[in-house]
Amino acid sequence: MVDHQWVGKRIPRIDSLSKAMGSAKYTNDIFLPHMLHGKILRSPYPHARILNIDKKRAERLKGVKAVITGRDTPGERYGILTEKRDQYLLAIDKVRYIGEEVVAVAALDEETASEALELIKVEYEPLQPVFDPMEAIKEGAPRIHDHAPNNVSVQVLIEHGDVLKGLKESDRILREHFETATLSHCQLEPYVSLASYDPASERLMMWMPHQSPFVKQKGLSNTLKIPLSKIRILRSSIGGAFGGRSEISPADFCAALLSMKSGRPVKIEYLREETFSSTRQKHPWIIDLEMGARKDGTLSLLKINIVADGGAYQSTGHIAISVPYAMLESTYRIPNIRYEAIRAYTNNPIRGAMKGHGVQQLYFAIESSLDMLAEELDLDPLEIRLKNIVQEGEKLRSGSRVKSCGLRDCLIQSAEEGRFQSKWRHPSKNRGVGIGCCSMINGYNMGFRTGSTAYIKFNEEGEAILFTGTTDNGQGNESMMVQIASEELGMSIEDINLISADTELSPLDPGSYSMSTTFISANAVKAASLDAKGRLIDLASEVLEANPIDIELGNKSAFIKGTPSKAIPIKDLIKRAYEKGKPVLGGGYFRPELGFKGGWIKNGKERGQITGTYSFGAAVAEVEVDRETGIVKVLKAFAAQDCGFAINPMAVEGQIDGSVLFCLGQAISEEIVMNGGQVLNANFLDYKIPVASDIPEINPIIIERRDPDGPYGAKEAAEALGIAMLPAIANAIANATGIRIKSLPITPEKIAEFIRVKNN
Amino acid sequence: MVDHQWVGKRIPRIDSLSKAMGSAKYTNDIFLPHMLHGKILRSPYPHARILNIDKKRAERLKGVKAVITGRDTPGERYGILTEKRDQYLLAIDKVRYIGEEVVAVAALDEETASEALELIKVEYEPLQPVFDPMEAIKEGAPRIHDHAPNNVSVQVLIEHGDVLKGLKESDRILREHFETATLSHCQLEPYVSLASYDPASERLMMWMPHQSPFVKQKGLSNTLKIPLSKIRILRSSIGGAFGGRSEISPADFCAALLSMKSGRPVKIEYLREETFSSTRQKHPWIIDLEMGARKDGTLSLLKINIVADGGAYQSTGHIAISVPYAMLESTYRIPNIRYEAIRAYTNNPIRGAMKGHGVQQLYFAIESSLDMLAEELDLDPLEIRLKNIVQEGEKLRSGSRVKSCGLRDCLIQSAEEGRFQSKWRHPSKNRGVGIGCCSMINGYNMGFRTGSTAYIKFNEEGEAILFTGTTDNGQGNESMMVQIASEELGMSIEDINLISADTELSPLDPGSYSMSTTFISANAVKAASLDAKGRLIDLASEVLEANPIDIELGNKSAFIKGTPSKAIPIKDLIKRAYEKGKPVLGGGYFRPELGFKGGWIKNGKERGQITGTYSFGAAVAEVEVDRETGIVKVLKAFAAQDCGFAINPMAVEGQIDGSVLFCLGQAISEEIVMNGGQVLNANFLDYKIPVASDIPEINPIIIERRDPDGPYGAKEAAEALGIAMLPAIANAIANATGIRIKSLPITPEKIAEFIRVKNN
Repeated sequence: MVDHQWVGKRIPRIDSLSKAMGSAKYTNDIFLPHMLHGKILRSPYPHARILNIDKKRAERLKGVKAVITGRDTPGERYGILTEKRDQYLLAIDKVRYIGEEVVAVAALDEETASEALELIKVEYEPLQPVFDPMEAIKEGAPRIHDHAPNNVSVQVLIEHGDVLKGLKESDRILREHFETATLSHCQLEPYVSLASYDPASERLMMWMPHQSPFVKQKGLSNTLKIPLSKIRILRSSIGGAFGGRSEISPADFCAALLSMKSGRPVKIEYLREETFSSTRQKHPWIIDLEMGARKDGTLSLLKINIVADGGAYQSTGHIAISVPYAMLESTYRIPNIRYEAIRAYTNNPIRGAMKGHGVQQLYFAIESSLDMLAEELDLDPLEIRLKNIVQEGEKLRSGSRVKSCGLRDCLIQSAEEGRFQSKWRHPSKNRGVGIGCCSMINGYNMGFRTGSTAYIKFNEEGEAILFTGTTDNGQGNESMMVQIASEELGMSIEDINLISADTELSPLDPGSYSMSTTFISANAVKAASLDAKGRLIDLASEVLEANPIDIELGNKSAFIKGTPSKAIPIKDLIKRAYEKGKPVLGGGYFRPELGFKGGWIKNGKERGQITGTYSFGAAVAEVEVDRETGIVKVLKAFAAQDCGFAINPMAVEGQIDGSVLFCLGQAISEEIVMNGGQVLNANFLDYKIPVASDIPEINPIIIERRDPDGPYGAKEAAEALGIAMLPAIANAIANATGIRIKSLPITPEKIAEFIRVKNN
Repeated sequence: MVDHQWVGKRIPRIDSLSKAMGSAKYTNDIFLPHMLHGKILRSPYPHARILNIDKKRAERLKGVKAVITGRDTPGERYGILTEKRDQYLLAIDKVRYIGEEVVAVAALDEETASEALELIKVEYEPLQPVFDPMEAIKEGAPRIHDHAPNNVSVQVLIEHGDVLKGLKESDRILREHFETATLSHCQLEPYVSLASYDPASERLMMWMPHQSPFVKQKGLSNTLKIPLSKIRILRSSIGGAFGGRSEISPADFCAALLSMKSGRPVKIEYLREETFSSTRQKHPWIIDLEMGARKDGTLSLLKINIVADGGAYQSTGHIAISVPYAMLESTYRIPNIRYEAIRAYTNNPIRGAMKGHGVQQLYFAIESSLDMLAEELDLDPLEIRLKNIVQEGEKLRSGSRVKSCGLRDCLIQSAEEGRFQSKWRHPSKNRGVGIGCCSMINGYNMGFRTGSTAYIKFNEEGEAILFTGTTDNGQGNESMMVQIASEELGMSIEDINLISADTELSPLDPGSYSMSTTFISANAVKAASLDAKGRLIDLASEVLEANPIDIELGNKSAFIKGTPSKAIPIKDLIKRAYEKGKPVLGGGYFRPELGFKGGWIKNGKERGQITGTYSFGAAVAEVEVDRETGIVKVLKAFAAQDCGFAINPMAVEGQIDGSVLFCLGQAISEEIVMNGGQVLNANFLDYKIPVASDIPEINPIIIERRDPDGPYGAKEAAEALGIAMLPAIANAIANATGIRIKSLPITPEKIAEFIRVKNN
């Protein structure tokens, strides 16, 4: 094993100090001269026709500089999936949910903008709404989109093997029904978009939280009908994404259009209420499954029917209901499988991408069922999982190869450290343990942006400047890139400046999607570093009259291995390169070999390699349940993640902590409560995310099953775990109480009610 | 001759619209949150010892956030020439001129900052000052710097041939005395510096007008003792430089140190008065010369003694008195020459670089003397010049080769168009004509920054982003770079975005010094464009199955010459490159072959090639003089510049216009009036730059003597002319009046006085 100086080390993130001291610039910290404040008027109806909009009085209000409606937009529809674009920049003909954007205003200050909204008269003709996805897909339900009969937004059917054969071969068959909740990402940074349009150069500059500046740039170019070269997305610090910053937002359109109309910069900041109701939410799923196994616990059948409530528009719905299948086949070997999913349009807020993107919903059902099945077969939950998990080197039904797999180690180590098997067999009073596991793709086909590029240049002192398109939403991506350049260039991270997430300055990158940053973007940075390193060593070998293979880089110098005295400063090599007429610029590119060229999985056909590689996670939870109140306290979490190699163990642990808490909230407290299309708990008092006092003892377990293609063997960290932990908690509650709650979140009310019923 | 699509064309500059519409961002247009305003307390004494500074009361004033004196600086001295660093960031022991920086303050607003200055008590012990450079270099004069006996700041002696031999060979010898004035650059943008220091990352960001961000970065790093990687100079629009933005400024130090002390951004904007007295001024020269020639007008001798008043500090003084020699030898062939120059320290404001950098002063004397000599020899001014000018291909005494030379064409065409010879022989009443010429170096040894690098990347649409370190002070450099990339990539200038003048983003560049931008930086951009073009054509040749040499780029596509139908969009080539795993990045570098490795010319030793190439200019002026008032009206200017090739004729003409007016002011009206070290006319009412009504009919003449190494044959535009025009006006006044005024400016008072004396 090579001995590393920078990677694999516990290093404080390069952004932590500036965030702790408050000097990090989030979009809302950016103020431009003559900047206006924008506000958006939203639909009060879940489903209505727009008859007329009167904005005259608002336009006349002193301090108002621009007012726009759908008629002031290019009239384009937008959406991730070209063939399913269904949402206008601002509502034109109809509104389809409470909170939909209808009119936008820019004024000298927020108060004036708010006042202007009150002066706008919108006439609506209310239409029959539908909120229940099961109702929505029935014949004769109110039609939300002309293009979608029965309100079917997307439908997916994937079949492998033969379910009838599977039925015959199964000694035990479980039939269950599960439901999951609607959730909000709850990024601590409310959505904010700042646009600055220069009428002279006809260029638009924008700042906002995102997962890729290039996705924003392209989307805005398409919908605003502005050439790509005239739109620049600039870097700002980002206060969390969790999938919720994937798409272009109406706030982006409105800020841009208002700036173009007023000729002044415009900032729109969402209130927390708007962030809850009018940014994307997590799909609630209704799941019916049949799971079959042989006596020995070998899985023989999985038949699963999913109806997901997609809300008013398409968003990333096709991914949300199709991609989870990929995590199913890469975790468990199931010979006969039928996976059917329908995403229904309803008049609820729009559901899109959220950390896990459908997989949590699926795995709540799968992992709960596995435990129930195990019990019937008198196996313990660990045994049944170990018997059925995918192995390293295995080729999956989709055609993907599992090149590296530490799933078994994840399961065994989390179980051992959590003393799972003994505790599970003998749950002490009110206490119980549960286990879960999962896998995760690393990178996906993104067309133009499937690969990542990086460059490194040097200043006169031989210090480096690294260019990457990577976006850091808080995971520590930026630090990781600098660490890798430090490792290869033998420089302190202090000596490397980073230029990232700027469409004008950064080379193309997939962005922080599909867990590709470590596997793909970091590989590109490593390649660029090695390229620069090679050039420096060649230059040094001339000066030091040594064979390149005998030369190393360290302390801003190149030196002969073993004899650091025979050294030359990188600064001098840089100068030498200038004098030789070929300045040093390191360039690197990485693109995973994907057989899968299509956009998304619609059916069971073999597609070849669909992802760069797979990462894995397993979790054991220990809980205590108060039988009177039903209150659940998660006491301990043993969280194992196979990240291939931990480039910064501290950062990986941070990701593990975050994933544990993300699951904790989903498992026992988080839920958006709706009534008639209206969000009832759009604040942090009524929508309960875990707080400090809820945090359990978290025991992170880093499994390093090096991937042959990952940078230093590294893969995605803690998203696989971020799924496994949720069912682990659900299973622990069942183990503690003997009660199996099949709908999320598992609230005190549900538990107390069950106990009451059971005791009577 | 190749037919060009973009270069050689009259194209409006890419920055003109944003400047006309007011959206261009000059440093003073940048406002940062929590920004403070800085002010500087200056010395009221020309020469004094600082006994004590009491800043307590200022620090206690509400709204004051930081106060610094020389003791709060790292105590470094700064200066262009390492061995002659003589100026503290803020005065510590002594002050040496009226206006020297003593204390700096940052407060919430300008008013409070000004109030704070009044509360600072500085105790001085006045010392004997000296203002006259001839006095200053005498034994026993007050000593201004401990390191400089007799107040000699720099001394240069260059000898070629044998002046005694020259004396013998001369049939006529002229002995004359000339004096030139102290001038201000009068950039319309007063000096302003904005610093933003982040205590968390310990990084300093700065914006200010400059001629190279890298020079500012390095100078600040050295003097503030901050690593280069922690200082970033960012681009802002610049309102003129003319050599006056060459050096780091006390405003930069103060803004930086105040920001570091207060932890908030600090902006310091100079008043026009401060710009006059406390930024660099142009050296006034006292010149004694002996010029000898044979009967036929062949020059045989030049003996020249210069004493320049350098003011209180070194600044760029060594260049100011040495570099003019280079323009002497590259314009006229003089076998025996002795060039001696002394720069004296005085207690006047600091004299540094200004457009022409000493050459105007020298050429006022040379060209005036040539005319006088011609008269004695009964030759006309054109004849004597044509007889003695340097020829193409000639090797100069310094060892430099003149690779391209259009000087003869410049002289003949300006003379013909101005009907010089006939008008000169028969001056009509009160009217006269004059001629002058000069040469100019293109690039100089700048060590690390002698060469320039450029890069080009592409976005998903195949539009280009060009990275260059070039600075644009108003000449049109940015437009030139984009034009060249357009030419080579067959794209509209609209499709190319420019990233320039940012130390973090831009590759190294010499900056806008020594007239190197066209010859060096534009060559690098051309090389980068050709590199990208080659990659694109290789990719296209695979797709189009054609020989690369048969493929052209145009309209964002690659196509087969002659058959534009067989084409593929660049966008697709870019994507193809990604798929092949090697994204397209064009890189280019250019560095002139210089034999001259030393820092500056101290003596006559042969140094080899001292510059990339030489450009040339000649001018004819026609003036009318009112014999009563002595008022001179310049009627016509015929201004010829050999720029090799005009990349944008409109921009070259703009430069010619500017140069003509620059000379016009120097010739007849501009002069800083001093009394006891105090500037008496530090405003645009009393310091008279030409206004609209002063502008003559300007006839620009572009001579295109293509240089073998220049981009498309291009060289510097209009600086050579910007010297020639000054003596042309002086000579025209002499021709009109029969009076030879030998001190600048040639004011009405001087003329009227001479006429009065003559008529009595």
